[in-house]
Amino acid sequence: MNENSKLAIIGAGSVGSSLAYAALIRGSAREIVLYDMDRAKAEAEVLDLAHGTPFTGAGRITGGGDIEAVAGARVVVITAGAKQQPGQTRLDLAGTNVGILASLLPRLVELAPQAVFILVTNPCDVLTVAAQGIVDLPPGRILSSGTLLDSARLRWLIAERAEVSAASVHAAIIGEHGDSEFPLWSQAKIGSTPLLEWTNSAGEQVFDAAERARLHEEVVGSAYKVIAGKGATNYAIGLSGARIVEAILRDEKAVLTVSTVLHNYHGVDGVALSVPAIVGKHGVERILYVPMDEPESVHFRASADALHASIATLGIVTG
Amino acid sequence: MNENSKLAIIGAGSVGSSLAYAALIRGSAREIVLYDMDRAKAEAEVLDLAHGTPFTGAGRITGGGDIEAVAGARVVVITAGAKQQPGQTRLDLAGTNVGILASLLPRLVELAPQAVFILVTNPCDVLTVAAQGIVDLPPGRILSSGTLLDSARLRWLIAERAEVSAASVHAAIIGEHGDSEFPLWSQAKIGSTPLLEWTNSAGEQVFDAAERARLHEEVVGSAYKVIAGKGATNYAIGLSGARIVEAILRDEKAVLTVSTVLHNYHGVDGVALSVPAIVGKHGVERILYVPMDEPESVHFRASADALHASIATLGIVTG
Amino acid sequence: MNENSKLAIIGAGSVGSSLAYAALIRGSAREIVLYDMDRAKAEAEVLDLAHGTPFTGAGRITGGGDIEAVAGARVVVITAGAKQQPGQTRLDLAGTNVGILASLLPRLVELAPQAVFILVTNPCDVLTVAAQGIVDLPPGRILSSGTLLDSARLRWLIAERAEVSAASVHAAIIGEHGDSEFPLWSQAKIGSTPLLEWTNSAGEQVFDAAERARLHEEVVGSAYKVIAGKGATNYAIGLSGARIVEAILRDEKAVLTVSTVLHNYHGVDGVALSVPAIVGKHGVERILYVPMDEPESVHFRASADALHASIATLGIVTG
Amino acid sequence: MNENSKLAIIGAGSVGSSLAYAALIRGSAREIVLYDMDRAKAEAEVLDLAHGTPFTGAGRITGGGDIEAVAGARVVVITAGAKQQPGQTRLDLAGTNVGILASLLPRLVELAPQAVFILVTNPCDVLTVAAQGIVDLPPGRILSSGTLLDSARLRWLIAERAEVSAASVHAAIIGEHGDSEFPLWSQAKIGSTPLLEWTNSAGEQVFDAAERARLHEEVVGSAYKVIAGKGATNYAIGLSGARIVEAILRDEKAVLTVSTVLHNYHGVDGVALSVPAIVGKHGVERILYVPMDEPESVHFRASADALHASIATLGIVTG
Repeated sequence: MNENSKLAIIGAGSVGSSLAYAALIRGSAREIVLYDMDRAKAEAEVLDLAHGTPFTGAGRITGGGDIEAVAGARVVVITAGAKQQPGQTRLDLAGTNVGILASLLPRLVELAPQAVFILVTNPCDVLTVAAQGIVDLPPGRILSSGTLLDSARLRWLIAERAEVSAASVHAAIIGEHGDSEFPLWSQAKIGSTPLLEWTNSAGEQVFDAAERARLHEEVVGSAYKVIAGKGATNYAIGLSGARIVEAILRDEKAVLTVSTVLHNYHGVDGVALSVPAIVGKHGVERILYVPMDEPESVHFRASADALHASIATLGIVTG
Repeated sequence: MNENSKLAIIGAGSVGSSLAYAALIRGSAREIVLYDMDRAKAEAEVLDLAHGTPFTGAGRITGGGDIEAVAGARVVVITAGAKQQPGQTRLDLAGTNVGILASLLPRLVELAPQAVFILVTNPCDVLTVAAQGIVDLPPGRILSSGTLLDSARLRWLIAERAEVSAASVHAAIIGEHGDSEFPLWSQAKIGSTPLLEWTNSAGEQVFDAAERARLHEEVVGSAYKVIAGKGATNYAIGLSGARIVEAILRDEKAVLTVSTVLHNYHGVDGVALSVPAIVGKHGVERILYVPMDEPESVHFRASADALHASIATLGIVTG
Repeated sequence: MNENSKLAIIGAGSVGSSLAYAALIRGSAREIVLYDMDRAKAEAEVLDLAHGTPFTGAGRITGGGDIEAVAGARVVVITAGAKQQPGQTRLDLAGTNVGILASLLPRLVELAPQAVFILVTNPCDVLTVAAQGIVDLPPGRILSSGTLLDSARLRWLIAERAEVSAASVHAAIIGEHGDSEFPLWSQAKIGSTPLLEWTNSAGEQVFDAAERARLHEEVVGSAYKVIAGKGATNYAIGLSGARIVEAILRDEKAVLTVSTVLHNYHGVDGVALSVPAIVGKHGVERILYVPMDEPESVHFRASADALHASIATLGIVTG
Repeated sequence: MNENSKLAIIGAGSVGSSLAYAALIRGSAREIVLYDMDRAKAEAEVLDLAHGTPFTGAGRITGGGDIEAVAGARVVVITAGAKQQPGQTRLDLAGTNVGILASLLPRLVELAPQAVFILVTNPCDVLTVAAQGIVDLPPGRILSSGTLLDSARLRWLIAERAEVSAASVHAAIIGEHGDSEFPLWSQAKIGSTPLLEWTNSAGEQVFDAAERARLHEEVVGSAYKVIAGKGATNYAIGLSGARIVEAILRDEKAVLTVSTVLHNYHGVDGVALSVPAIVGKHGVERILYVPMDEPESVHFRASADALHASIATLGIVTG
């Protein structure tokens, strides 16, 4: 038996193709299939990506307009869907994209019955709940990239402000991948120093309440800012997706902030929100407890309420 | 004195930003600046790329609409220019893009007087000749990515056909980065086996004249095919550019098929064509002699004639 | 001006040569020089390492018995010295190795006046203090690998016990690189969860006082255990050294637990102990404050007292 | 079904542990088991290697003195055996090491019935023939690292002499991994230039007959030279082994010069010699034809004769 390291990416738009590019360069998977209903677009992206493979590692890319090529994939990343417009909230996208998911997912599960499914399409939390109703899979096998990207944005901002490497910043954004998300300030650290106690070289506190509010706002506004300037986001979300794929294919047991349906978690039940979780070969293998102070708890339940409302409005049946 | 590993990319279109993305993921440079006249676009691309850096290595990216940020760069890659339209030949783009280059290059040399300049904008061979007339730099410090990408396309096609790794295929496309380019079949190998003697497991020759003609045609048509399907090429050219940047910043002395102005090379003089060259910290450090059989020689001079004609038509003064 | 990415390694024993091997494979430096008084040994190690470079990246290795080859290095790692014997404490090694350092360091500073110096030879904290008396360099330009290795051992043990990726374990051993070192349990985390609150899937606390004591003991005993079985440690210390080199050459501003001479730090003054510090192109660029609870404070001062005693015994003049 | 990326290394001497170190740093395999009869030695090496894994990727290492840990491995690398002494030829080692192989191999095949077996122990060609008689496996599933290392040595020497990157040197040593091995000069290239036509910048031929004889001699003498200086070779052979492991686990279809039993190949039959072969998930998937000129053919048959003689002397039954 040879190893199975096959990644299928659904949707050859800028997110799906950037994710494929990142995955090829990083060697995230040995075999990548890129599928899109728009066959000409998918084939052109595959060709452009394949032409670069003599410069990368052992990974191969194929694909096009035949969904059968997904067969036997170990991880399926879904990026297909209508994309967020300037001014539009992520939740506004929901109806259309739940419909697209409902039409795709049963066939994908049929083709790749052992796969872990990663939803990147927005609003990803809503879609994660919807997916659990559409197909019958163990909860950990359906997850979304959620606030992994937002956490990266926060870590980058903190790193720039503190003048340290982002690799030394341990911080997470949790909750909805959207306007109600929030940083878990009480647990954030730079190296072994609590973020709240971090000072500059003059001994002054750097991350006071005002600065934290500013960073929070900047993270929440990041997607809007990028969309305003270039029409979409694709590079950082591509890397976020590739990172989750690696954690699964390499069975890393990495702690990543991703979204799955929660049950009895800090008072939240039946909606998908991002919290730190162990990601390995089975997908989300364990949802981790994190301490929250009172304002964080309030925020978290507000995030859940926002999701519940969307789900109810959309008439989504929870699995 | 700390090391200088600063890369400036001029033009934040899909080629420039894909190149930046590849360079960040590969760790090609420690510091990347992405500049575009369209400030909003450049800032949005930089933000999207920076948000991904917590997933990559030590490299940082900044940039926007201030060309001064290029100051002190060790390598400058120019991707700015009008892009090739479906049906348009690369040479048709020339006039406009030479004009853009003439307006940019003197300022870039002023800001980064020690840099090696890599031209990615098409038609890159024409622009390489033009650049030598616009600024006064040692010839090896101005090069274009030329047929490095086309050589990768050829290697990928041969690898697929022979069912071997592209890393084991040693083959090059030389001449114009355009319709008159051609494979150097006589020197192509798979491992230690000449391509012309390669057989399948049934002992039949694989790369006979008909198959070689087909592959040649397919490489030349690749860009058109990708452009027809997705409107532009960006991923493979991004990797090609990043590869050249690495060869320079790491002083690799790698043999790469890139374009510089040739003098008395197989009868060609005063035009830029791609041939194998040693690329290191000084840019093109040595142009290498390669044996050509008679049909290859004829092709090569035809490539040169095509370039000469373009240059004459455009009234380019050669440096 | 080309970049300077030259690493000199002093001592071609198993630590120095493993460090060179790791650095070549990881691409930590572009140019590596391996020096040893025992010319035949050094030349043989260089040859064996160089024979592997066609499988690695752009880095080159040279060296042998001529110390002049160190000239112009950007980072110098000192691994030369007598090695720890089974049953011997790290402090017992001190006298001999301070003598070796005193004979080498002035010449090395002469040859590489801009270099950052990393001491790997044990007892590394004592040698760091001694080095400051031997040569006149800014304090941050002399550091030792200290407890970076011990911190890695702790992170590996925690990761195995918690069944998560070591990359998701944020924990540090601080103090002396030796018997008095201790884990900073109060600041340790797995993802965003405090280590002290980590439970297994049955909801039971994993890292209770008994388990923490066991892990502490296991880290402190690790070197002895490895030495008992194979006579020396070389692989993990090689990677630790390569990691510090990268932080400097890439100007990462990474938070690493390394040893430098401390002043007024949690009541400690004039000895070198490992605490989290920002490491970048200037070496240790900033020593970071970390909160300690009372037992940690007591431990830390005990570590300092142990060092002070050794230094006094050895008659080391502090710089 | 999760992927199988398990590598077992038999023998925790300097070759086996260096191979494990290289494989961990390169991410060659996700799971590595290091086994040695000398349990204490194996456990100490595993501990030292594991302590370094927080600095490397997702790979894990375990092992010790229980051969059962090899169970289910996808690739087994055998490094166990007596090692070459100064002055000793590789063939002199044969008797002892064939005996060790005969005692190990049946049990290993029982534990890992689907594995590809790579023999690194010397004399590796003799052992490859012997292995085919000891167990009943498809020929491609037993191979040895053969002259892959010698080819790397040649490429490094050529690269130094031509002042180019070793990655741009395409050259192979074929035949016996020992004194009768020889370079396939007629097929060697630097980029697209035949080695025999390579000139320096003054236009003088670099690799004339005298220089080629010198390089040939230097490659053959390399192992002796390294052994004389440091008692053994381990680093470059470790990388060679890791490279083959990658080609198998990633199903690369890479052309590598490795040793398997040949049949009707340039007049050679029933002995194992290194020639270029396609290496993928099934091990050696295809032995490739390479053209030889008359002196090369003579050399090759002499290599075969040397092997036949050893095999006859040792009374090895060929499979």
